[in-house]
Amino acid sequence: MSETPSRQTVFQGKVLDVGLEEHLMPDGRSVTFEIIRHPGGAAVLPLLEDGRILLIRQFRPAVGRVIYEIPAGRLEPGEPAGDCAARELTEEAGYVASELLPLGGCWSTVGFCDEYIHLFLARGLSVVPRCLEPDEFIELCPMPLADALRLVASGAIDDSKTQLALLRYQLLVRELDNDRFA
Amino acid sequence: MSETPSRQTVFQGKVLDVGLEEHLMPDGRSVTFEIIRHPGGAAVLPLLEDGRILLIRQFRPAVGRVIYEIPAGRLEPGEPAGDCAARELTEEAGYVASELLPLGGCWSTVGFCDEYIHLFLARGLSVVPRCLEPDEFIELCPMPLADALRLVASGAIDDSKTQLALLRYQLLVRELDNDRFA
Repeated sequence: MSETPSRQTVFQGKVLDVGLEEHLMPDGRSVTFEIIRHPGGAAVLPLLEDGRILLIRQFRPAVGRVIYEIPAGRLEPGEPAGDCAARELTEEAGYVASELLPLGGCWSTVGFCDEYIHLFLARGLSVVPRCLEPDEFIELCPMPLADALRLVASGAIDDSKTQLALLRYQLLVRELDNDRFA
Repeated sequence: MSETPSRQTVFQGKVLDVGLEEHLMPDGRSVTFEIIRHPGGAAVLPLLEDGRILLIRQFRPAVGRVIYEIPAGRLEPGEPAGDCAARELTEEAGYVASELLPLGGCWSTVGFCDEYIHLFLARGLSVVPRCLEPDEFIELCPMPLADALRLVASGAIDDSKTQLALLRYQLLVRELDNDRFA
């Protein structure tokens, strides 16, 4: 399979880099794919001192509604994922964390995009001033993990990275509980 | 917030519909966003008669490697999500299911795309001939759920819809177990 596919850019915006790429398939044929190149991102589930987790709510033009998410953003060129998570935690939620634990990560939509989102859990939070972008309007929604998981089950939390971070954090909690009671 | 944002298409391919959209923000300002319009999709976790689940492996040009996934595809115009899941289960895996159970769904990448993926669990499977597209090369990988969850934890299963379907199915199994032993 081709390591360096030929690429013709068809749209280069501030956010989206859209191209036509020729890829060699396992049978040796060359096939053209429409592919978005993306720098990747980081998303962070904040764990508050009182044990609640912190979700945010913001209007997302792509889906035309206000949705639940966790703080997240795109990697700057060369930026380590943990630095990006820490930056978004401060900018969008107004916290710095003494500890960022990896919660895995995911390709968000492998059919046409190489966006990889690194997930983190943030602990040991201290309040700092938020620093929102001009087009960000973000409401903070602290809640118990159990409530957030009910919102996942009901479909009210429908963002993929947010669901994944909550479900993986729940697994972590259960494993720790199992260890404690083993 | 605008219900019918003005949109200027900047690229229309076979798969991607890329546009510049003006959206009214909560403060009344109009802001331009680069947005991909997508018909949505369906993905299905097949549960085999012997209790194992079925993953597939295929080369994905966008991420440049062979990855673990579950059968999935784009909705045809007007197609119900369950029909799409059933179609992909047959085309990519070679099964028909007597039962499709909803496992929720997700926006795959809300920052720039309105792709919503409906997730299903397929039970009561019967073997039928596969029917792959010319550019699909798919290996079938049946395995115990516990093995798949270990691959999620290790990062070897890194596709978002596949992780979500496995984690949500695990929750379902635990709830059923809790009911049984309650």
